[in-house]
Amino acid sequence: SQWCARVTEAPAFSGGVFLLIVANAALLGVETYPGATARWGGALRATETLFLAAFTAELALRIAARGPRAFLRDPWNVFDLLVVGAAFFPLVRENATVLRLLRLARVLRTVRLLPHVRIILVAVVRALPGTLSFTLVGGLLAYVYAMLGWMLFAGDDPAHYGSIGRAMLSLFLLMTLDGLGDAVRTGLEVSRWTFLYFASYVLFASFLLVNLLIGVVITSLEE
Amino acid sequence: SQWCARVTEAPAFSGGVFLLIVANAALLGVETYPGATARWGGALRATETLFLAAFTAELALRIAARGPRAFLRDPWNVFDLLVVGAAFFPLVRENATVLRLLRLARVLRTVRLLPHVRIILVAVVRALPGTLSFTLVGGLLAYVYAMLGWMLFAGDDPAHYGSIGRAMLSLFLLMTLDGLGDAVRTGLEVSRWTFLYFASYVLFASFLLVNLLIGVVITSLEE
Amino acid sequence: SQWCARVTEAPAFSGGVFLLIVANAALLGVETYPGATARWGGALRATETLFLAAFTAELALRIAARGPRAFLRDPWNVFDLLVVGAAFFPLVRENATVLRLLRLARVLRTVRLLPHVRIILVAVVRALPGTLSFTLVGGLLAYVYAMLGWMLFAGDDPAHYGSIGRAMLSLFLLMTLDGLGDAVRTGLEVSRWTFLYFASYVLFASFLLVNLLIGVVITSLEE
Amino acid sequence: SQWCARVTEAPAFSGGVFLLIVANAALLGVETYPGATARWGGALRATETLFLAAFTAELALRIAARGPRAFLRDPWNVFDLLVVGAAFFPLVRENATVLRLLRLARVLRTVRLLPHVRIILVAVVRALPGTLSFTLVGGLLAYVYAMLGWMLFAGDDPAHYGSIGRAMLSLFLLMTLDGLGDAVRTGLEVSRWTFLYFASYVLFASFLLVNLLIGVVITSLEE
Ligand code: NA
Ligand code: NA
Repeated sequence: SQWCARVTEAPAFSGGVFLLIVANAALLGVETYPGATARWGGALRATETLFLAAFTAELALRIAARGPRAFLRDPWNVFDLLVVGAAFFPLVRENATVLRLLRLARVLRTVRLLPHVRIILVAVVRALPGTLSFTLVGGLLAYVYAMLGWMLFAGDDPAHYGSIGRAMLSLFLLMTLDGLGDAVRTGLEVSRWTFLYFASYVLFASFLLVNLLIGVVITSLEE
Repeated sequence: SQWCARVTEAPAFSGGVFLLIVANAALLGVETYPGATARWGGALRATETLFLAAFTAELALRIAARGPRAFLRDPWNVFDLLVVGAAFFPLVRENATVLRLLRLARVLRTVRLLPHVRIILVAVVRALPGTLSFTLVGGLLAYVYAMLGWMLFAGDDPAHYGSIGRAMLSLFLLMTLDGLGDAVRTGLEVSRWTFLYFASYVLFASFLLVNLLIGVVITSLEE
Repeated sequence: SQWCARVTEAPAFSGGVFLLIVANAALLGVETYPGATARWGGALRATETLFLAAFTAELALRIAARGPRAFLRDPWNVFDLLVVGAAFFPLVRENATVLRLLRLARVLRTVRLLPHVRIILVAVVRALPGTLSFTLVGGLLAYVYAMLGWMLFAGDDPAHYGSIGRAMLSLFLLMTLDGLGDAVRTGLEVSRWTFLYFASYVLFASFLLVNLLIGVVITSLEE
Repeated sequence: SQWCARVTEAPAFSGGVFLLIVANAALLGVETYPGATARWGGALRATETLFLAAFTAELALRIAARGPRAFLRDPWNVFDLLVVGAAFFPLVRENATVLRLLRLARVLRTVRLLPHVRIILVAVVRALPGTLSFTLVGGLLAYVYAMLGWMLFAGDDPAHYGSIGRAMLSLFLLMTLDGLGDAVRTGLEVSRWTFLYFASYVLFASFLLVNLLIGVVITSLEE
């Protein structure tokens, strides 16, 4: 146990684990190329088994070093145990999609090993509640403009404004300013006043967006 | 009257009103789906009547609690009374569009119940006068470039620059940078120097826009 | 002369001149509609003559109030004299384009009458020298990437990279991110490494642009 | 040697070298026009030889002024020696592409002569390490979303998501918001939930990008 503690606390240990995770992520990427799976399918599967064995050994060492109770008290450790251990359950092994999601989740274990990345993520998560009011205002804005859009254009442009769901999707995509010209020109054929609809929407939406982004950035830079 | 005051001041009362408004907004959204109105048309209309009854009861309670005079002194209350009460006038009831706008206006009553949202809106409204000078400079810029655009391109591209109104619309849309490539290439066929026209416009417009957005954001974040 | 000074210093005088300039600008805008010039051509020309008479009277009053020497010492006054007086020269009167530019230049006289607008313009002009270094870096970046683009793509895509002029235009338009997808996909057909060319260009260009905009905005907000 | 030192330290010397480099850059640009090389090919080649002679003389003077050892201690001088001297090696002379890259590299010598430009570049380079964490988070985000994109769309849209490489390219281009509408609409045909995939990706990516740009700008403005 003391030997295990000494091993797992060595910087080379987390460095090695980090490299293993990155190599496993690369393997997952290589498998997306049909040519690679056709030619080296067997070798790729064997390598994956080796990676699973290595991760299992890593977890066994860390459990042995700290004892099962202390180990499970850290939620990151519970996450590690779940994404590595689940691969041994027959139900999971048979479902290719679940197995792949599991292997993808393992890549997220790198976050824990990179302190600066963890700081950024924590800062973002802490900045989120402050954005709740903006999200509410944004939701209200989207709802009101979607209802108005449906009332104005449901007849002439049902593909984009035929229901409140479609109108909200169209307005969300207009926020990227892509296709705004087409939308405005289609609107002008209905009435000249629809221009005010689009112009005010773009102004309000970009004001909210800039405010939201700057708010989150400032909150997270402060930390 | 004292019982009414106790009821309307309970947190559960505004919570309930908030949920009612959100549910009414959802109903308004459901009605935009032609399938839903065809199948459950009667039920949707009945539900709307129930909502109207509930909002009327809410207002009656609040008027009884504070007395008509004190109630009408708050402009938010006048707004509530108008958007709920107008639904009882026969002229309004017969016009589907007006009735729908009225029901949409009721959704805006949520703003009053969300203090943080009210703060953001007040901050935006207070920041607006400071943007007046930018708007004047922007209007001058748009006018001068629209006149120049009409003088340069009215003959070759009447669809986009055939009058000062069209030229202003085209320049507003160019501010989104969408289709700038097409505009510049069309311009180069008229003369090489038109490039300066587009480049200087995009630079001035984006400088004004960034200045305006940052100005409003800073003013409203300060509050 | 004293009477002239009293008249020209009254707030109603600059207010009236401001309204005259705005009305003259509106007239200039109305003339861009072919329908309007066809129907009311004579009336529009007569109104323009009245505007010119009014501006001439305004200048005559201001010269009489301060004396010709003191009047000409202010460069804004020289500008006023030029854009109003030039309309009387036969050579200018015969050239419709020059005459129209002159009338457009008169609209810029509003700048002097709006103190806040003048402050913004002065702030922008003062911020410009500080952007010289960024412009030099930007020019160097554009030149080097245009040369590389010509070396990489002149053979496969002569329409966009056939000479350094065309390559610079294509790279300027790529800065708006419009059509970046097409450019990258065309590049990938030449070589996979061209991706680095586009990715690094977009990163450097947007960094420079954001830096430049924020620099100018901060400099001009400080004033 | 003392005469050489006096000459090379005169402001006119670096001014002249700067003008020579700019003229040489212009010559390089002129050579990209096929018409120019066809008509004045001989003259252009002769001018280039003159430029090379001038740069060689400049370097000879600077080496004579400070002595070879002191000269080579400055890495900028080593760079100058390489990009000028390499043009004399037969292997380089025969390869038109290498020779052109070498001549392009000489344009970068202007950086050294413009102190403000050097300050900006140094500031950018110093700000880069601080962006490493953001780049890691960005890489992780791109990898996870590319894997999910491949799992969701590899069957229906192999052109954009057929492998992790293609998915990463598509996601990089979506960051420019160009073509987001098409991507979302294609996704909605697969499943309604794919909307969350695109919306969350755009939000995370733009947050990271804004954070990164503002971080670099703030770091480099501080210097
Ligand atoms: Na665009
Ligand atoms: Na775009």
